[in-house]
Amino acid sequence: MKVQALRGFRDYLPEEMLLKARFLERVAGVFESFGYPPLQTPALEYSEILLGKYGEEGDMLMYRFRDNGDRDVCLRYDLTVPLARVMAEHGELPIPFRRYQIAPVWRAEKPAKGRYREFMQCDVDLVGVDDASADAEMLEVGAAVLAALDVERYEIRVNHRGILRGLTRGLGVEDGEREGAFLRWLDKLEKIGEEKFIAGVREEFGFDDATLERLTGALASDGDSEARLAALETIVGEDPAGADGVARLRELFPLLERVGIAAKVTFDARIARGLSYYTGLIYETTLLDLPSIGSVMSGGRYNDLVGMFSKRDLPSIGISLGVDRLFAALRELRDEPATLSPAQVMVVRFSAEQAADTHEFAARTRAAGLAAMIYPGEAKLKKQMQYANKLGVPFTAILGADEVAAREVTVKEMESGEQRRLSWDDAIAWIRSTTSESAGAS
Amino acid sequence: MKVQALRGFRDYLPEEMLLKARFLERVAGVFESFGYPPLQTPALEYSEILLGKYGEEGDMLMYRFRDNGDRDVCLRYDLTVPLARVMAEHGELPIPFRRYQIAPVWRAEKPAKGRYREFMQCDVDLVGVDDASADAEMLEVGAAVLAALDVERYEIRVNHRGILRGLTRGLGVEDGEREGAFLRWLDKLEKIGEEKFIAGVREEFGFDDATLERLTGALASDGDSEARLAALETIVGEDPAGADGVARLRELFPLLERVGIAAKVTFDARIARGLSYYTGLIYETTLLDLPSIGSVMSGGRYNDLVGMFSKRDLPSIGISLGVDRLFAALRELRDEPATLSPAQVMVVRFSAEQAADTHEFAARTRAAGLAAMIYPGEAKLKKQMQYANKLGVPFTAILGADEVAAREVTVKEMESGEQRRLSWDDAIAWIRSTTSESAGAS
Repeated sequence: MKVQALRGFRDYLPEEMLLKARFLERVAGVFESFGYPPLQTPALEYSEILLGKYGEEGDMLMYRFRDNGDRDVCLRYDLTVPLARVMAEHGELPIPFRRYQIAPVWRAEKPAKGRYREFMQCDVDLVGVDDASADAEMLEVGAAVLAALDVERYEIRVNHRGILRGLTRGLGVEDGEREGAFLRWLDKLEKIGEEKFIAGVREEFGFDDATLERLTGALASDGDSEARLAALETIVGEDPAGADGVARLRELFPLLERVGIAAKVTFDARIARGLSYYTGLIYETTLLDLPSIGSVMSGGRYNDLVGMFSKRDLPSIGISLGVDRLFAALRELRDEPATLSPAQVMVVRFSAEQAADTHEFAARTRAAGLAAMIYPGEAKLKKQMQYANKLGVPFTAILGADEVAAREVTVKEMESGEQRRLSWDDAIAWIRSTTSESAGAS
Repeated sequence: MKVQALRGFRDYLPEEMLLKARFLERVAGVFESFGYPPLQTPALEYSEILLGKYGEEGDMLMYRFRDNGDRDVCLRYDLTVPLARVMAEHGELPIPFRRYQIAPVWRAEKPAKGRYREFMQCDVDLVGVDDASADAEMLEVGAAVLAALDVERYEIRVNHRGILRGLTRGLGVEDGEREGAFLRWLDKLEKIGEEKFIAGVREEFGFDDATLERLTGALASDGDSEARLAALETIVGEDPAGADGVARLRELFPLLERVGIAAKVTFDARIARGLSYYTGLIYETTLLDLPSIGSVMSGGRYNDLVGMFSKRDLPSIGISLGVDRLFAALRELRDEPATLSPAQVMVVRFSAEQAADTHEFAARTRAAGLAAMIYPGEAKLKKQMQYANKLGVPFTAILGADEVAAREVTVKEMESGEQRRLSWDDAIAWIRSTTSESAGAS
């Protein structure tokens, strides 16, 4: 019998989970500060709700089975289609509707380094409105999430599907399927380089040299957002979709300016987002210190997706945060000391005679707002100290017979080795003054 | 096509999730204050890990299927067996080991009012130590959880499997299967009443009148814990397991006394806990204002379960919090106003000309630590106010042309209708002074 986690799945042990729980709390806190409440949907849905929504590949990767009542069911594949189901089922929900959801999804993909068959998705969506204010809000949410995670060096690159539509029409690519193929090429541009991109689209679409020159001009990344946008306008401005896209971005940037995030957001006509359902603004986010991991926060406007099960028109915009990827990236970039325990102090255990004082002191410490752990079981002092070190607990507290008799405690700061014998109140004050500093810095 | 959640499953919409998220944060905060870190395990496990661990009924209720690689897998049924798997697989974990896990589990039970096939479990366990200090800590954790949820009127009733073993042996019930049957009768005692209980065990075990008299004497609920324990000692004290149980409880109560929770904990020989795997202390918790919903927090010592996949001996004790049940009970007992939004203020939207000021004011409000939502889309003022009321947002802020010109804002407290035209800073200060009071009280 294999006593191990299922292939393609993993445990998150305390060392990671302690950081990840703090990480997710901050993200959720930002969403709520913009007025987004949480939503929770079931892990399982009727298959007919999910199938056919993610293309052929999605259907293949779905965990699909018959439940104990012979119902055809699937584990959820993302959080957007369940949101669309919720919007149709719960007519009582206020429109416009905001929500966030942080939950695992399941995809039977080939496991690879850092890729698992169960991973956390973290989605925030604003449903029922299509204007520049909503678009700006979504970028503000994204920037605020990164600020809350102390990420300063990043770039959000935005584009608009209308501009891309105008561009492809200008290139003579009219029908939807060929447009989709072109967008997939564009999506690969950065990975494969411009040379391969040009060769590829020349072959697939038969563009002549003049067309290719217009294309490379449109995709040039010189100048600031305004200069790039002006260049694009001369190319796509005649097309109604292109003109709409340019106008929306022209409305968007002044809003970003006023909330102080314009410097983080760049217009880039090369951003395509592979998925076919986007209809307006689209965006991707690169960590400047770790660009190789790809976009950590992306999304866009998809006006036809959330309303798919409803009679109502529900234009929507959302961000999907690559939680696991971003979390792994920040762990790689930062050298945070590992801790296996949330405790700020470990109270050493002596004989059963001192147990009552041990428990009472720990309880008093907790009442003062600190996390206090009692060494579990009986062991020599040295072993208990090693345990505290292994767990990364910054303080230990010793209540031996002498201390108990004097109603005192000996507290040791593990890193410096400094040891003080104090009254209980003074001991708690010392631990609190030291650990609240580090808690504030974390 | 049925656009609905899967039968036996449910959505948690924002109104409930906002409260539930706060609820779970408090619970997790208490666990961490005792030094318990979070652990996360996959939703799916190899079937051979889970099958046969929950009795015949458990195997029947398991969601079991073949994954896309033809592996025999099950959705997790509880959090204890996955913990046992983790302890065996990750030899690097420190022993003794503490952890908590809050996660959904799946059981294909017949749906009933308040019973779903997906529900949240919330488990905290201390692995690798068997002494009175660990037992006391677990009850302290339980009491601290209820205190953090502002629950004051509750009773934790405890018993010890050793005492029950001594009792059943004294009744002539020696073999394990019959002992299990007796414990299941005892577990039902409160529900069916003493008369039916006596009739039932008389028939099943053939007890004579003298034996039944000894039994009813042992189960009497007169007197305080110490008096009851003394009465039990005279009955089971000769039996080694019975004597061990009495001794452990005699060590436990003074510890509870010292941490101030002894008044909440009662020894009650009628507590049996149906599950066969308990080996020591067991406990159940009743809300005194809503006893009918049954135990909201229960568990006990199970010294043979967590080590089942390991070579190591891992005596353990844990609490399982009935999260969904307790959450529903507290909602029933309290008349908290419904809120559909975490926002403390909704900023009204006028024309596109005012949009930049709207966004800037909202951003400033958030920077001051408040949750600020912009009305999404364009609508008449009256409709925007109705939206704020529906969502339960306590304040609205209006930036019309006049306010924008004067760099001011008109703030309205929705419940009182009080309206003030203020500078931005003063407006933020007013909202903060009012909402932080209510946040502190919640």
